Amino acid sequence: MKPLDVLQQSMHQRVLVETRGGRTYRGVLDAFDQHLNLVLSGAEEVVGETTTRHPGITLVRGDSVVFVSP
Amino acid sequence: MKPLDVLQQSMHQRVLVETRGGRTYRGVLDAFDQHLNLVLSGAEEVVGETTTRHPGITLVRGDSVVFVSP
Amino acid sequence: MKPLDVLQQSMHQRVLVETRGGRTYRGVLDAFDQHLNLVLSGAEEVVGETTTRHPGITLVRGDSVVFVSP
Amino acid sequence: MKPLDVLQQSMHQRVLVETRGGRTYRGVLDAFDQHLNLVLSGAEEVVGETTTRHPGITLVRGDSVVFVSP
Amino acid sequence: MKPLDVLQQSMHQRVLVETRGGRTYRGVLDAFDQHLNLVLSGAEEVVGETTTRHPGITLVRGDSVVFVSP
Amino acid sequence: MKPLDVLQQSMHQRVLVETRGGRTYRGVLDAFDQHLNLVLSGAEEVVGETTTRHPGITLVRGDSVVFVSP
Amino acid sequence: MKPLDVLQQSMHQRVLVETRGGRTYRGVLDAFDQHLNLVLSGAEEVVGETTTRHPGITLVRGDSVVFVSP
Repeated sequence: MKPLDVLQQSMHQRVLVETRGGRTYRGVLDAFDQHLNLVLSGAEEVVGETTTRHPGITLVRGDSVVFVSP
Repeated sequence: MKPLDVLQQSMHQRVLVETRGGRTYRGVLDAFDQHLNLVLSGAEEVVGETTTRHPGITLVRGDSVVFVSP
Repeated sequence: MKPLDVLQQSMHQRVLVETRGGRTYRGVLDAFDQHLNLVLSGAEEVVGETTTRHPGITLVRGDSVVFVSP
Repeated sequence: MKPLDVLQQSMHQRVLVETRGGRTYRGVLDAFDQHLNLVLSGAEEVVGETTTRHPGITLVRGDSVVFVSP
Repeated sequence: MKPLDVLQQSMHQRVLVETRGGRTYRGVLDAFDQHLNLVLSGAEEVVGETTTRHPGITLVRGDSVVFVSP
Repeated sequence: MKPLDVLQQSMHQRVLVETRGGRTYRGVLDAFDQHLNLVLSGAEEVVGETTTRHPGITLVRGDSVVFVSP
Repeated sequence: MKPLDVLQQSMHQRVLVETRGGRTYRGVLDAFDQHLNLVLSGAEEVVGETTTRHPGITLVRGDSVVFVSP
């Protein structure tokens, strides 16, 4: 198994994404590529104690990703 | 679907862009490339509680982008 | 011995991973690649004194990894 | 339109450049390349509330650029 | 002499490794590659005044290394 | 004109160099390359309110450079 | 003259090296490569007001170097 294959298993499911700088996103994983660019739908962004909803789709740049978890 | 394809869907529409360091931009997406360099028109920049308007076009360097959302 | 070979020895065993920014992960190493992208199962994330459990699999981006230890 | 083409439209005009770390430059754009290296003439540098004038030409390294706006 | 050759001289000897962010590791150098990825055995990690022992082998990512010294 | 050509115009003249992290150098530009590695002679380094003189030649790594100005 | 040639002139002489994060090293330059990886002998490391001696040879990773001066 290659590491990025685990993302294939999480396609169309809810994932948790943490990025550099401490932002966290939760949303349904709709697409990804080998750079770890991610597309989330219905994403919620958590910074400290503030949650912001992003209706529709959100593109998270792979460079910023620290980890992805179901 | 490839992650960057979602930007194609947002062309000529208003998007929200967050960059490293906590700056946020809102504007109409007029162009992008695969490095995630973005062109916004009528952009508003939000840093903390300060909003600055940038009439005309703004180029945001892809390296700095954390996420893009409609 | 090449450095990344040591990860082969830790496959399917519990490892400790530290990332830039001070996050620590403990979990069973299920996969890795030469970029040091890591797949952990049953990971626990420690930030300061807070421990968060991530059931299932977690993908840690190699770019963020500082060290890996059994 | 490619993102960097917008810089062509701003050639020999006054632009605003923000860099990582919060420095801001205003000056006339005299040259640029695809790395976003920029040449400004008559640049003013703003850090916090301090403005410094740099007569003649200034080279801003593309790596440091966050955005460019007219 | 090429810079990385000095690591060859330190093979199977105790070295001191400092990484970005101020962590320090001491351990026996068991392997390295040209990216400066390092394998230490019996490593001690020092962060501020706290020392943590990592029995067995530790992989330190080359990207994080600032210096290595006997 | 290409951006780096402006450095050619500043050869053997006094320049101001700012680097990431807020260090500033003033010195005579004796050499540069396309990575923006710079050689300064008689450089003064300013960090906050402290000025340090570096007699002879100083090599500034291009990666660290934010801007160069006459 | 190419920028890195100045290091050739400093071979086997005492140099001052500053790295990202504010560490400073003084030692005799015994080797370097084009990535600016440096080997110092008899290096002293200065962080704030603390000086640490590293007898023998020290390898400083080029990525971390901000400047080198005699």
